Amino acid sequence: MKDYNDIKIAYIGGGSRAWAHNLMNDLALDGSIGGEVRLYDIDFEGAKINEKIGNDISARADVKGKWRYRACETIKAALVGADFVLISILPGSFDEMESDVHLPEEYGIYQPVGDSTGPGGIVRALRCLPMFRDFALAIEKYCPEAWVINFTNPMSVCVRTLYKVFPKIKAFGCCHEVFGTQKLLANILEEKYGIKATRDEIRTNIVGVNHFTFLTEAKYKGTDLLPIYDAYIDEHPNGLPQTADAKHWANGAYLTTELVKFTLFKRYGAIAAAGDRHLAEFCPGKWFLADRETVEKKYGFSLTTVAWRKQEFAERKKRALDYYNGEPFKFKNTGEETVRQIKALLGLGDFVTNVNIPNVGQVENNPKDVIVETNAFFSGNSVKPLQAGKVPDALNALVMRIIEEQETVTDAALSGDYEKAFTAFLNNPNVCIAADKARELFDRMLKNTKAYLPYYDEYIGRRGKTTY
Amino acid sequence: MKDYNDIKIAYIGGGSRAWAHNLMNDLALDGSIGGEVRLYDIDFEGAKINEKIGNDISARADVKGKWRYRACETIKAALVGADFVLISILPGSFDEMESDVHLPEEYGIYQPVGDSTGPGGIVRALRCLPMFRDFALAIEKYCPEAWVINFTNPMSVCVRTLYKVFPKIKAFGCCHEVFGTQKLLANILEEKYGIKATRDEIRTNIVGVNHFTFLTEAKYKGTDLLPIYDAYIDEHPNGLPQTADAKHWANGAYLTTELVKFTLFKRYGAIAAAGDRHLAEFCPGKWFLADRETVEKKYGFSLTTVAWRKQEFAERKKRALDYYNGEPFKFKNTGEETVRQIKALLGLGDFVTNVNIPNVGQVENNPKDVIVETNAFFSGNSVKPLQAGKVPDALNALVMRIIEEQETVTDAALSGDYEKAFTAFLNNPNVCIAADKARELFDRMLKNTKAYLPYYDEYIGRRGKTTY
Amino acid sequence: MKDYNDIKIAYIGGGSRAWAHNLMNDLALDGSIGGEVRLYDIDFEGAKINEKIGNDISARADVKGKWRYRACETIKAALVGADFVLISILPGSFDEMESDVHLPEEYGIYQPVGDSTGPGGIVRALRCLPMFRDFALAIEKYCPEAWVINFTNPMSVCVRTLYKVFPKIKAFGCCHEVFGTQKLLANILEEKYGIKATRDEIRTNIVGVNHFTFLTEAKYKGTDLLPIYDAYIDEHPNGLPQTADAKHWANGAYLTTELVKFTLFKRYGAIAAAGDRHLAEFCPGKWFLADRETVEKKYGFSLTTVAWRKQEFAERKKRALDYYNGEPFKFKNTGEETVRQIKALLGLGDFVTNVNIPNVGQVENNPKDVIVETNAFFSGNSVKPLQAGKVPDALNALVMRIIEEQETVTDAALSGDYEKAFTAFLNNPNVCIAADKARELFDRMLKNTKAYLPYYDEYIGRRGKTTY
Amino acid sequence: MKDYNDIKIAYIGGGSRAWAHNLMNDLALDGSIGGEVRLYDIDFEGAKINEKIGNDISARADVKGKWRYRACETIKAALVGADFVLISILPGSFDEMESDVHLPEEYGIYQPVGDSTGPGGIVRALRCLPMFRDFALAIEKYCPEAWVINFTNPMSVCVRTLYKVFPKIKAFGCCHEVFGTQKLLANILEEKYGIKATRDEIRTNIVGVNHFTFLTEAKYKGTDLLPIYDAYIDEHPNGLPQTADAKHWANGAYLTTELVKFTLFKRYGAIAAAGDRHLAEFCPGKWFLADRETVEKKYGFSLTTVAWRKQEFAERKKRALDYYNGEPFKFKNTGEETVRQIKALLGLGDFVTNVNIPNVGQVENNPKDVIVETNAFFSGNSVKPLQAGKVPDALNALVMRIIEEQETVTDAALSGDYEKAFTAFLNNPNVCIAADKARELFDRMLKNTKAYLPYYDEYIGRRGKTTY
Repeated sequence: MKDYNDIKIAYIGGGSRAWAHNLMNDLALDGSIGGEVRLYDIDFEGAKINEKIGNDISARADVKGKWRYRACETIKAALVGADFVLISILPGSFDEMESDVHLPEEYGIYQPVGDSTGPGGIVRALRCLPMFRDFALAIEKYCPEAWVINFTNPMSVCVRTLYKVFPKIKAFGCCHEVFGTQKLLANILEEKYGIKATRDEIRTNIVGVNHFTFLTEAKYKGTDLLPIYDAYIDEHPNGLPQTADAKHWANGAYLTTELVKFTLFKRYGAIAAAGDRHLAEFCPGKWFLADRETVEKKYGFSLTTVAWRKQEFAERKKRALDYYNGEPFKFKNTGEETVRQIKALLGLGDFVTNVNIPNVGQVENNPKDVIVETNAFFSGNSVKPLQAGKVPDALNALVMRIIEEQETVTDAALSGDYEKAFTAFLNNPNVCIAADKARELFDRMLKNTKAYLPYYDEYIGRRGKTTY
Repeated sequence: MKDYNDIKIAYIGGGSRAWAHNLMNDLALDGSIGGEVRLYDIDFEGAKINEKIGNDISARADVKGKWRYRACETIKAALVGADFVLISILPGSFDEMESDVHLPEEYGIYQPVGDSTGPGGIVRALRCLPMFRDFALAIEKYCPEAWVINFTNPMSVCVRTLYKVFPKIKAFGCCHEVFGTQKLLANILEEKYGIKATRDEIRTNIVGVNHFTFLTEAKYKGTDLLPIYDAYIDEHPNGLPQTADAKHWANGAYLTTELVKFTLFKRYGAIAAAGDRHLAEFCPGKWFLADRETVEKKYGFSLTTVAWRKQEFAERKKRALDYYNGEPFKFKNTGEETVRQIKALLGLGDFVTNVNIPNVGQVENNPKDVIVETNAFFSGNSVKPLQAGKVPDALNALVMRIIEEQETVTDAALSGDYEKAFTAFLNNPNVCIAADKARELFDRMLKNTKAYLPYYDEYIGRRGKTTY
Repeated sequence: MKDYNDIKIAYIGGGSRAWAHNLMNDLALDGSIGGEVRLYDIDFEGAKINEKIGNDISARADVKGKWRYRACETIKAALVGADFVLISILPGSFDEMESDVHLPEEYGIYQPVGDSTGPGGIVRALRCLPMFRDFALAIEKYCPEAWVINFTNPMSVCVRTLYKVFPKIKAFGCCHEVFGTQKLLANILEEKYGIKATRDEIRTNIVGVNHFTFLTEAKYKGTDLLPIYDAYIDEHPNGLPQTADAKHWANGAYLTTELVKFTLFKRYGAIAAAGDRHLAEFCPGKWFLADRETVEKKYGFSLTTVAWRKQEFAERKKRALDYYNGEPFKFKNTGEETVRQIKALLGLGDFVTNVNIPNVGQVENNPKDVIVETNAFFSGNSVKPLQAGKVPDALNALVMRIIEEQETVTDAALSGDYEKAFTAFLNNPNVCIAADKARELFDRMLKNTKAYLPYYDEYIGRRGKTTY
Repeated sequence: MKDYNDIKIAYIGGGSRAWAHNLMNDLALDGSIGGEVRLYDIDFEGAKINEKIGNDISARADVKGKWRYRACETIKAALVGADFVLISILPGSFDEMESDVHLPEEYGIYQPVGDSTGPGGIVRALRCLPMFRDFALAIEKYCPEAWVINFTNPMSVCVRTLYKVFPKIKAFGCCHEVFGTQKLLANILEEKYGIKATRDEIRTNIVGVNHFTFLTEAKYKGTDLLPIYDAYIDEHPNGLPQTADAKHWANGAYLTTELVKFTLFKRYGAIAAAGDRHLAEFCPGKWFLADRETVEKKYGFSLTTVAWRKQEFAERKKRALDYYNGEPFKFKNTGEETVRQIKALLGLGDFVTNVNIPNVGQVENNPKDVIVETNAFFSGNSVKPLQAGKVPDALNALVMRIIEEQETVTDAALSGDYEKAFTAFLNNPNVCIAADKARELFDRMLKNTKAYLPYYDEYIGRRGKTTY
């Protein structure tokens, strides 16, 4: 039987200043498992800083969860013998992300996030997926039996790549966007009926893809919440008061009125379950993202700038240094589920939650093998998707469109056929511009990120020959 | 929200002297729900007796679960407004069952149970499924939103009929045979490693059909139990000591050495999860049922006689009368899960268990819509099958054979095409006799049960014309 | 055995001034079958005119095919006993079509045809499909064994409706657009290699939907034509000289440079096989239809006006009257295949051609049951689709998008849920405008065609309640 | 374009004394193609003899088809540059076949052919499939674009192996058993209606697997032949007069009454389309093969002995020598289709015929990828299966049983897991004996053929450890 005090977690991207601290936090607060966390990062200095922060936490007398943190200089050192592999990386730097998100604005294309789909998401995939190919090959070689949890965006194609490269991998992707919608439903229950429900008492049936996820069922103790949600929307025809979202879980400082969510429900009859910022990106560009005014005034959400991300990162970097220099770590309720998942996979408590995982039949009207987001049952060394039924027919027009885009982009990124990637780019819902303009934009975006594109020169070489 | 003290349960077959008492037992011991149980039975007297027994239990001060029992003279009276419908009937009487089980012995065909497959199971289906058609139509009319739980054999085709007749029915079939195998694995864990695990800590992945069910995975807190089981079998080449099975769950007084189970594991690499008596009936007749000696001496299980069933029924009838006449009801641990399932469907505690339910994709290599036995997640007003993967390829030869038989027999029973039923009969694994002998047996069996066969005369009319 | 001189053909839309004359032409030229053609039309006068024209032709001594033409006042009179049913109607009048095609231009949406997809195709479907429901019900009642051939647009959803309403119907849809592309390939063969091939010696593998059809294989006597086509395009970077298309089969007076076709080949690697005017409508609106200049100058095809259609119809009407008044019918090579298909279904000559028919597995990566265009083998009383493999992955993004639209629109038209139709409308590739503008356009279009919309009032009644 | 006078055909098994002469015959009679035939055989002498016979034929002035025959000492020499590869081998010798067919008789198992299924077919597969693995690897290496036509039994698993080893192979299997049934139907048409139809005017829809193939449709010029066949059977309740089958095509000297065929039609409603000798082997052993009397007296077909095969082979060998020594080759109508297929694949005449090829969706209720026998359309460099619909449900019980057996046996033969092969053996319809007897038989059969079994020692080594 497994020794619960000798668990080995490899963390790719372990130099992170945000998510790594959440993990340390949750491992420290839970006392039922212990072992070693190996921090691997191309920013080795970041990993060393986290090593010290983590070990300082473990050394505290008031901390139950005892873990040994160790920065690793090679991915091999991190992976050999690992029971779990966590992947949370930034593919490229914020400079590349700046091009992903903001260059399209010159062409009238606005992206509130720009990391999952749209011009930004597609180009980010081109540089990210070759890295995931390397991860998959290393996992196959050094720890083929490990459970692999991905947090990196673009989520669906990252997980798709892991399975394409190493089909027997035990991997899934985690995202907390659905939690926010469960919380919204709990808030409505409280506001309208005085019932206090926890987030995970809101039982759901989930379909769709990451960041464009839909609840086709939502129940509290068997009571159907869809008519309640419907009536609530009718009472709020302009959405909720725009808020800095202190109470809505996991949305941080982002403003929202939920009006994108409400609009999609009225159109498709299913509850969109991600932040409005994400949802808007998967819809035709003229719906929610036609221009700044539509975004900010009509639908009341915000376009996150990369400048803001850079500033926020600087703050997190500073806070990490403070911890490194001895300031005591502040524990909090992170709302993350990773430690709970790890424990379930070790046989310490079954539960059901949403994951991004290949479609082996859980979604009837999406193709086999593509990555879908559905509920799954976690138990000892096992993740089994629950049957999720069908994506509602009209909605499937949007979902199939993104799935076909993801398949094309994954193929393009791994084979280096960026011409094919351009085909997907041109057909992206948010790219409502002429083909020659789209080509110009695509070429400029690739150029800005070429340091991370293994097949860039080949693409440019071929470009001269075609005028289409 | 649902009023947990006003739950309405309709019980078709509610005059039962066995399973009805288990239900009363479990409802009484659980105090979280209450309401009304409507007992419907063609044996109305039996229902009246149970009405009094049930109400006497509810009246006891030491009983937490308060239910009102009511015998109903019509199925309509039982179903209108029902939240749950339980179906547990004997199709025909023990006389018909006697023909099902024992007449084939004259032709060298031995059936340890004779209610699920084989000559007995097929003929039983012919008289049972028209009854289930009526149930389905009544449920559609009187309580289309109710959850329907079937306990009647032949399980798979009963549930198949419910869905064929009323496709939107919320029905599943329950059977505790898998529990016995979980308990066997728990016993092995204790015997070999000193670990005390409860039955449902043995986490499984289940495929197959009812009574021919297989665990393709079995884990205790993430530890793979298949190699442990394999080694255990090697230590017991002749099976376990034949026992009256005091400690093996739910096998009552039936003898077993588990050698059928062990043999099937060595052949197919998956753990057969039903009593040996059942398993043997789904395999080619020469394997385990060639003759009495093979059954009793070589494999060490028993052929249950209908004479024994009649005697046991008389005892149960007497005990019911004693209760009716005032003897205090004796509570016990029934090991049944029905009340737990009902509570989960009411939003009172999610869990995973095995059910018989249409294949909507949970089993990759069985056809859609047929009834398979797999794990499912129960939560408020929801039963979602878990993805179960594939039936192992060589084993699927046996499983597909029975599935095709079940499809043919369901069709035949509902359309009255008994000629088609004979085709399935002739191809049944246990019918290894010449076609003319098989025809003679089939005709004799039908004649013995013709009182329950709506299309019997039509079949006999056609028979004259064909010599094949 | 069938009497080849007693074939009964029912023609719904038999008052037609164009296609009916092609049929008369081809029946007259072929002498192997004869019988009766029943002409049914809501324009009964048109049917009477055609009756006389047809009978005059049959009476001519130089005509081999002898048919009796009969105008019918009821659909029943036309259908009872029919062996074949041909459906070629105009749903509504050219006034409704004017709104379909030209009103969207006020919103910057240009449609070269406007009858298959796009705003025009969707609204046309809403008025056309209820008529097809009636046809299907009448066929089921009066001639369930007849073969039904549809020529009406929007093709895919018309055929889909026939099957939804009467699942056992023996129906398929015919369209000659593919022929034009086969002819183009034959022309290239002749121009480049001096090889004279007939259209149907160009063997193809076909996938896609009607008017957005693709050849994934094209061969002449086993030689792969794709590289030849590829090289030919490279020699014509701006397309072919724009021509009134005298030599390109079936394109009538329509101008084309084939540049849409060439562009799609370079992007997707399959040969688009319909007129550029059709193909453009299935692609995102900014690609080929951004504005008049893009259409006419850059890609060199034309936007067919309804004014032109009206004028052409007046000419055809006049010509019909001339025939009616005694002018001798002029025979020509129509290039149509209907008579050949009818003969094949009568056992007079097997062959393979392209049809629109439900997907029963011939296209691997499109859903079952939707209408796809693929090759099929025609023989006596049998049409069997040939396995067509997969739609190329990147291209499937476009094809799946239109298939999902078609499913939604069919549902909406038959159930009267025009709100759902609007959802499809809004997501149509050519509707790149804001949602409120799209709503306004949709409502105006519906109003213009409301005389043909059975559920119009219901839709308008609901509209007040929603602001989404 | 292809040079029709420079076609290269590689013939694996080219030393054959029977089928090779049919090929020479048909190539000589057809004058439209020419080139080289490379004869490869482990019996090199046989190939040399055929080389001379073939070249002598080509040299004759009265022969139109001019081919150069060349015996090759290596498979490489035969394959490099080949356009077509024909495979027709005897796996092992007649001595091994003697064990396959006759040893099971000691256990009461009778096999009229013993090369496709049953104990004989399974053991033959174990020695044959490793050879096919080698062929597939060589074809992939030396002529990956060639069309490969297999004639070797066991047909289904031979073709399955080719695709498993080299998935892009362009291979299919040919068998003329269906032709005989088409001829039977033509004979009935003539006898009952005086209509003279050729074999291939009988249009069919085909499902099933090789040698257990069924016509679910049969039509002559659109007229349904199933009711005619049904009535004909009623007139012949004991089958046709047993004949040496002079007029029934392709059955050679084999006796038959067609009563197996007739019986299966009455049971399943589809026309079994192979010789009774083959059909009987796929059914449960007690139906047609219970004992010699059942076979010969009741059903009136014969058990072909291997002694007879040896004698017949000696005669053919002598005739070949006569030809070699100068006796002029006698041309005949072989009834074979191979040359017609080769021509169609070269673009010289499309047609539809039955082939054994992977299920890519043409059969709805059989798994993907397994080898099914259905109709396919042959045209230039293309073989496209026609949609065949479903195997009738009750019949699918038998078909799925054999398909699962074939999958298991293919796996076992290629992986060397003969224990798994035994599992299939034990579950074979014709092995109605106890497991220990079956094990003894299997072991004896393997021993008799061990010279051809690459994994025999490994199997024997493992055998000691298990008693199951």
